Amino acid sequence: MNNKHTIIAFVEDKPGVLNRIASKWRQRGFNIESLAVGISETPGLSRMTFVVDGATTDVDQVVKQLKKLINVIKIVDITDEDMVSRELALIKVSANPPARSQIIEIVDIFRAGIVDVSKDSLIVEITGDEEKVNAIVELLQPFGIKEMVRTGKVSMLRGGQVSASLDEEEPVITD
Amino acid sequence: MNNKHTIIAFVEDKPGVLNRIASKWRQRGFNIESLAVGISETPGLSRMTFVVDGATTDVDQVVKQLKKLINVIKIVDITDEDMVSRELALIKVSANPPARSQIIEIVDIFRAGIVDVSKDSLIVEITGDEEKVNAIVELLQPFGIKEMVRTGKVSMLRGGQVSASLDEEEPVITD
Repeated sequence: MNNKHTIIAFVEDKPGVLNRIASKWRQRGFNIESLAVGISETPGLSRMTFVVDGATTDVDQVVKQLKKLINVIKIVDITDEDMVSRELALIKVSANPPARSQIIEIVDIFRAGIVDVSKDSLIVEITGDEEKVNAIVELLQPFGIKEMVRTGKVSMLRGGQVSASLDEEEPVITD
Repeated sequence: MNNKHTIIAFVEDKPGVLNRIASKWRQRGFNIESLAVGISETPGLSRMTFVVDGATTDVDQVVKQLKKLINVIKIVDITDEDMVSRELALIKVSANPPARSQIIEIVDIFRAGIVDVSKDSLIVEITGDEEKVNAIVELLQPFGIKEMVRTGKVSMLRGGQVSASLDEEEPVITD
């Protein structure tokens, strides 16, 4: 059963913030599946997106504990909201000339792109939700995946509402 | 002067890894500009990409200190290598009907995409290097950016060589 939760945290861009957050995760035994941290629309504020498994983690506790931390401005579980979710992956695939055209076909079907070519390999760039990225990885596997990097998921509410405006006091259902 | 360093770390997917790494960053006063953590091509191994400012941080020390940590399998500074770097951004822009066509023009020029539309806003998805993402953000700013999420940069060596094969013992030049 898929019980993954997507949490967004807005944190001040100050030394030690990530340490305090990671330390809480550790103390509580939270298992973080992916993490993305980058700048937000507000100078001085970073936006973190992380995914935790609700089957092994008390998500409500994650949110409550992190909310108490200094420099954490806002934290919301947007799992049950109507949202756009994307991740980016770079996949280096073994590709001798005969394999190359088959790989290009797969890339076209997925509307992915090829961002580097060498005599025996290609780098494929793909964006999409986790399922889409998993699907192309599965199809490229037989050619030989030399290396892969994935950004972790980022998410945003659909429509005009801003993600940070979600009411963080709402009870979080964890199972 | 741009003195940003891009570091890749391969870490075992175990509880507490991120905490140990973030704790080192804290102790040493390292200023992390972006961070992406996701699964790699090897089951049980996560790949972290982070960017530090070499002007304020002793990058050589970052690498040396983290290399000593348990569960850190490999860490390399790939800044001076020939690499592909990408990040993904979702940008929610205010867009009443008259503004919409102007925004679509900008999106087309950047080969970006529109992944959500409501009566007064659009979500733009873009992938590229940091400069490209910054450039579209600057052009969209006058319409009103309601929110933005960026994954942080991920990087991979061009050509057939695998990033993890880089010799980590090479001296790192920090300025």
